Amino acid sequence: MLLMSCKRAFARAPQARRSVSTTTIFSHPPPNLSLKQLAKLTTPELLIKLGYIAQPNSGLTHWLPLGQATLENVSGIIHKHHKDAGCVEVSLSSLSHSSLWAKTNRWQNNELFKLGEYCLAATAEEEITSLVTPHLNSYKKMPFIVYQITRKYRNEKRSRGGLLRGREFVMKDAYSFDAGKEEALVSFEKMNDIYAKIFTDLRLPFVKANADSGDIGGDLSYEWHIVSEVGEDTVVECPECHACGNVERVRSEKSEGYVDESDVSYYLNENKELICIYYPKGRKLSLKFVKEEDLVEIDEQFGEGAKALSLFEETNNANDNLMTIYRLCDVNVGPGSKMPDLPVTFSKNHMITFQGLDITEAQEGDICSSCGTGKLKEMKGVEVGHTFYLGEKYSAPLDATFIDKDGSKKHYEMGCYGIGVSRIVGVVAEILRDEKGLRWPARIAPLHVSVIKSGQAEDAGADSTAAFDGFIARLTGRGVKVEVDGSEDIGFGKKLSKSKMIGVPLQVIVGKLVPLVEIEVRGVFFSETFRELHESKKGEWNWSVEKSKSGEDKHIVDIAFADQVIEALLQDM
Amino acid sequence: MLLMSCKRAFARAPQARRSVSTTTIFSHPPPNLSLKQLAKLTTPELLIKLGYIAQPNSGLTHWLPLGQATLENVSGIIHKHHKDAGCVEVSLSSLSHSSLWAKTNRWQNNELFKLGEYCLAATAEEEITSLVTPHLNSYKKMPFIVYQITRKYRNEKRSRGGLLRGREFVMKDAYSFDAGKEEALVSFEKMNDIYAKIFTDLRLPFVKANADSGDIGGDLSYEWHIVSEVGEDTVVECPECHACGNVERVRSEKSEGYVDESDVSYYLNENKELICIYYPKGRKLSLKFVKEEDLVEIDEQFGEGAKALSLFEETNNANDNLMTIYRLCDVNVGPGSKMPDLPVTFSKNHMITFQGLDITEAQEGDICSSCGTGKLKEMKGVEVGHTFYLGEKYSAPLDATFIDKDGSKKHYEMGCYGIGVSRIVGVVAEILRDEKGLRWPARIAPLHVSVIKSGQAEDAGADSTAAFDGFIARLTGRGVKVEVDGSEDIGFGKKLSKSKMIGVPLQVIVGKLVPLVEIEVRGVFFSETFRELHESKKGEWNWSVEKSKSGEDKHIVDIAFADQVIEALLQDM
Repeated sequence: MLLMSCKRAFARAPQARRSVSTTTIFSHPPPNLSLKQLAKLTTPELLIKLGYIAQPNSGLTHWLPLGQATLENVSGIIHKHHKDAGCVEVSLSSLSHSSLWAKTNRWQNNELFKLGEYCLAATAEEEITSLVTPHLNSYKKMPFIVYQITRKYRNEKRSRGGLLRGREFVMKDAYSFDAGKEEALVSFEKMNDIYAKIFTDLRLPFVKANADSGDIGGDLSYEWHIVSEVGEDTVVECPECHACGNVERVRSEKSEGYVDESDVSYYLNENKELICIYYPKGRKLSLKFVKEEDLVEIDEQFGEGAKALSLFEETNNANDNLMTIYRLCDVNVGPGSKMPDLPVTFSKNHMITFQGLDITEAQEGDICSSCGTGKLKEMKGVEVGHTFYLGEKYSAPLDATFIDKDGSKKHYEMGCYGIGVSRIVGVVAEILRDEKGLRWPARIAPLHVSVIKSGQAEDAGADSTAAFDGFIARLTGRGVKVEVDGSEDIGFGKKLSKSKMIGVPLQVIVGKLVPLVEIEVRGVFFSETFRELHESKKGEWNWSVEKSKSGEDKHIVDIAFADQVIEALLQDM
Repeated sequence: MLLMSCKRAFARAPQARRSVSTTTIFSHPPPNLSLKQLAKLTTPELLIKLGYIAQPNSGLTHWLPLGQATLENVSGIIHKHHKDAGCVEVSLSSLSHSSLWAKTNRWQNNELFKLGEYCLAATAEEEITSLVTPHLNSYKKMPFIVYQITRKYRNEKRSRGGLLRGREFVMKDAYSFDAGKEEALVSFEKMNDIYAKIFTDLRLPFVKANADSGDIGGDLSYEWHIVSEVGEDTVVECPECHACGNVERVRSEKSEGYVDESDVSYYLNENKELICIYYPKGRKLSLKFVKEEDLVEIDEQFGEGAKALSLFEETNNANDNLMTIYRLCDVNVGPGSKMPDLPVTFSKNHMITFQGLDITEAQEGDICSSCGTGKLKEMKGVEVGHTFYLGEKYSAPLDATFIDKDGSKKHYEMGCYGIGVSRIVGVVAEILRDEKGLRWPARIAPLHVSVIKSGQAEDAGADSTAAFDGFIARLTGRGVKVEVDGSEDIGFGKKLSKSKMIGVPLQVIVGKLVPLVEIEVRGVFFSETFRELHESKKGEWNWSVEKSKSGEDKHIVDIAFADQVIEALLQDM
């Protein structure tokens, strides 16, 4: 039997896993891509080419070293802000039993991956509530917020390439438990604050969009969007009061007058009676808002437009022209508005008209319904988070209770809060990439700095070697993730372009200028506080800034101070 | 739109997640357990009571803060040694498509959890091979070793409570790829070295047991066992040459003589002919070895013993007593051995006898088949790891090839290497627990030190507070995971016993002796190098050692040096 005799420092081990290299087989040698070819690749294709991920099947992701490091960095920021706020981390089983989901009527969901009586967890309201209930037995123990970052599953029929809509994905989900509604809303606001800090730290342009039906200033559910031209969602924001909402959900104030021309959409109800909906030409009808008016029951299985009309015509003929026709008019359609003729035969039909309905989506230029003055701006976004106030939606059907101050049993007041962690990796890749490849904010980049030696560096002798080793040691000591690319099968130029394509924020070239080094800037500056340091130290550190051949900023500085310059630049990136 | 303006240090975030507390609702207040009640709990029950894990359903685990921290510490050590050796980390999708498993004839495995055309990955030979093949196209890129620590799944019918045999579990799996058999065996040995380092670092008494059929000194597959009385497996080890093997798999040399008395087991073959197997009374028959002799085909569906005999009797009667009877005799059963009478009617039956077979398991006292001299020692073990040399077992059916030196296409020579990460947490809990609760080796303990203030500490004024804060800061600076238990709902004694029950290695009491503090030792010493420090510093640091009321070692030392004493003690624990 071998016995143990190891005497290494006991607390250091876990850090080792964070090292990452661009020279594993997955990322090296770099792909031979012309700028033209690169531009044609979708972002998922680019992530695959560069060795961040692999996709064995539609909607599934293998995380390779660079991708996993990036994912862990995003996770790290999310962990930090949850821990700082006192949230308790758990990690639940991915398998969840049907009995719990049946209680909340969610077992029938077609998007659950099922294995007999179990499903692969898509979210964890039921499991978490059932887990905490025996422990969270008194109002004194609340507020209580618990969270996890784990893989989640959704049997997504429309799964797309890449990280935006997968069947397996990494999600942060948090759940708050409170003794009353007032306290629950405090927890809800606290979580919204955490979200703002996380997205700020991730260096992402974000908006917190109202996701409640109704007023743009509603406050019980928010979608968190990364603002991007490539977004699938449209959100509107008020420049005056900063209220913001998804156009699919929130209402705006429209102008008071009637439009000249109206558009129309046709639907049927379950009796195949005709529903004609009139709204201003050029605006987008919101069926959701129509349904919320609760005036007619649209049956979408009968289709819309021409299909609905022809089905009505047929049924109406068979019923001796006696079927009812409903006409719904938007608030901006009325006297003076030109309305399309009804393209069906109607004679004895009863016609019912509703007017003054608010049934179109908000759009650029509408008046903000929250402050009543601002003119809404429209933008595209990708949803990466959601915060919900839930009330007793889950605690009541699960009969999850605690003992309140007055000794009575009460259901928890809950909230739930999601962030698509793997989705964020995909979105950042998408919105920051340029013609040369990926670009990562420093705090989520898998590597901060690639150090590349030119031929001259090798010939410079022992003094230079000592200076170089000291430089690398100081960088590492500052928490900078650095790789010295010593691969022998590709040359200097290829190493440089590989590092840039992969999106490493800084490339340091050690060569002909020694003891000066060149720092090429590949990443994006989100702030420019380094300029102050530059002003005060440029002389002492021999630090100049010029443009590189490729048009990017290039910093030239004495190797003895290069670590400090690099740290300052990274803080801004 | 909110824009980002955060200027925090960019590289620190990920560390935050490692903090853990014993005062979350899952572990606080501590359970009211008498020592008698505690002793009756199984280890899984104890882990649940103390808030390490929850088990929502048989074989499934929710990881709670203490359990997750412990699991991460074990993972951290495993990561460290794989990274140090240059293994490349990935993280594969948990869903894997049937087409790959069909190629290696593993799709029919009943223990795979299946969802339509996908399964939940139980292991990743197919996926990894298919993932690396496009990249690993030349002998120049090998050896290549890739690994991951992820959840794995097995539709285990016999799933047990706790962490030993779950349907979902955390596993480290690594895969080596080489250009030839010789190189593959180098990788295999390298992985075995990594395993020895990991288990040494985990402070666990382990053995590397031969898992090849045959000679105890075989070298192409090893089981890694934690030695423990609670183990399910029996392994034998040679004190001379240190060869070691699982008794279910390896052969030993038995004495040369015939025993006085033999035992017998009865089986049938597929024609319901009787098979009588004679072996020394008191030894364990190995059906595996019988099958390896390839003399008769045992059909286990017909049962054994009385059941087999009665079925034979019935069939033999119907066949006019003409059925064959096979007699297999162990090498130590022969002339002079008393053999049980055959308890069935036989008259015209043909009887076939085989003699000199090696068909019993190795046991304590047998001669080592590897060195031929040592007398084997027997011990119980729990298997926590396995290393396999695979050859072309997977690369051939998957047709996974590379270009070799001579320009020819060849299949990879592979190896695969598993460690049950969550299982290790369960095994350590089991083997180190005592009558007071859990005990963790310092390097995997969720917390290293609980600091508990007694009433007197609160009254001691500002000087004392500054000394206390400095002490905590120095501890943290040394990488010691410390919690100051400030919970107000339980008293001093309960805090102390809670920390001990949870298995925190050291309890520091700050109170009546200030500026001296008391350090109670709850954990296990694996070495005692601290004694040297004690000899040289006991005077200067006012450091004495005595027994606490509960019989454990207690160190008393000036608070100004307590952090150094604690670090020294933890290094040994």
